[in-house]
Amino acid sequence: MSEARGAPATGDDAKTPRTERGRRTLRAILDAAAQEFGEHGFHDAAIARITARAGVALGSFYTYFDSKEAVFTALVRDMSGQVRAHVGPHILDAPDRLTGERLGLQAFLEFVRTHQALYRILDEAEFVDAASWRAHYETTVQGYVASLTAAAARGEVRSDVGEVHAWAIVGMNVFLGLRYGVWATDTPAGEVAQIANDLLVRGLARRD
Amino acid sequence: MSEARGAPATGDDAKTPRTERGRRTLRAILDAAAQEFGEHGFHDAAIARITARAGVALGSFYTYFDSKEAVFTALVRDMSGQVRAHVGPHILDAPDRLTGERLGLQAFLEFVRTHQALYRILDEAEFVDAASWRAHYETTVQGYVASLTAAAARGEVRSDVGEVHAWAIVGMNVFLGLRYGVWATDTPAGEVAQIANDLLVRGLARRD
Repeated sequence: MSEARGAPATGDDAKTPRTERGRRTLRAILDAAAQEFGEHGFHDAAIARITARAGVALGSFYTYFDSKEAVFTALVRDMSGQVRAHVGPHILDAPDRLTGERLGLQAFLEFVRTHQALYRILDEAEFVDAASWRAHYETTVQGYVASLTAAAARGEVRSDVGEVHAWAIVGMNVFLGLRYGVWATDTPAGEVAQIANDLLVRGLARRD
Repeated sequence: MSEARGAPATGDDAKTPRTERGRRTLRAILDAAAQEFGEHGFHDAAIARITARAGVALGSFYTYFDSKEAVFTALVRDMSGQVRAHVGPHILDAPDRLTGERLGLQAFLEFVRTHQALYRILDEAEFVDAASWRAHYETTVQGYVASLTAAAARGEVRSDVGEVHAWAIVGMNVFLGLRYGVWATDTPAGEVAQIANDLLVRGLARRD
């Protein structure tokens, strides 16, 4: 959750821009790549359309990326960072971790609704760049394990939280995002997050 | 959960075999297709290798399928049915729905470990045959909604169970299967299912 929104987190696959103008160009290329890959998929996406969408010269693309594979890998890492940058503060600013989980899920559903390319790109990464795909989920889960463990130490959640719980929660959130963020947006994000959070906090057992 | 294991559930995309020998041939083609698509992915998979793996003549393939797309669609439906046929009895035979959910998750993890092609094929379906991909999850969730609602009527789970809960549980299980079935099998399936089930039944709240 360390990446600021808008600062491209491209890692080793892109040359790091040294000027503000360079950062803006790289940001424009990544946003255009998200549109292009989201609409056409990896195989049918074209670098020339990415630069056209971004309003930059083809040479600018090759300043930062060697290939379509390279911009795709950078985009997966960038989108993964964008999700964390968008959701993280909602978790961190909440009075406790379980409230934070509800507000974080609501923020995630809202992010998915306004970034419809996210799922298609992350899902296609399994076939285009499996290492980045796996890293996205492993990084997300590692963040959950760390923050749940800290919450347990503060007495906010059960004391035995661990990796299985983190994978379960991330899976819940990913599927709720698919159903209530990508496929249909008829139910308010806050309502979905409330129902899911009550399940997560109190469980499925009968209440009397 | 109506499909018997081994009886191909191919729906409209395959001609239905009328003889026992025909059913065995179709079963062999689908099992070979699972291996071929699982190893090579849809685009690089070859019908000739599917028939070679199945030990059937090329003509036998075209008795049942018109194309690579058709056998892929049939395979997605068949695998979806196989998962339900494998997991369903563990849920139904349990003394109550929450115990059934634990035993069903354990059975699912064991199925995934012995059917490593499952995830790759279902995940690739998003890009090859999105309707079948979506139908797999919607069918799975509909089954959950029905069985949770019935369990609520019997007083075995909270009375307000509904679609959001079902999507959350299916998402949990899919991600636990990815992590503890596909990526690594170091933790016993029963142990993962026990931890996840305790989370699902009792929730994440602190216990004193």
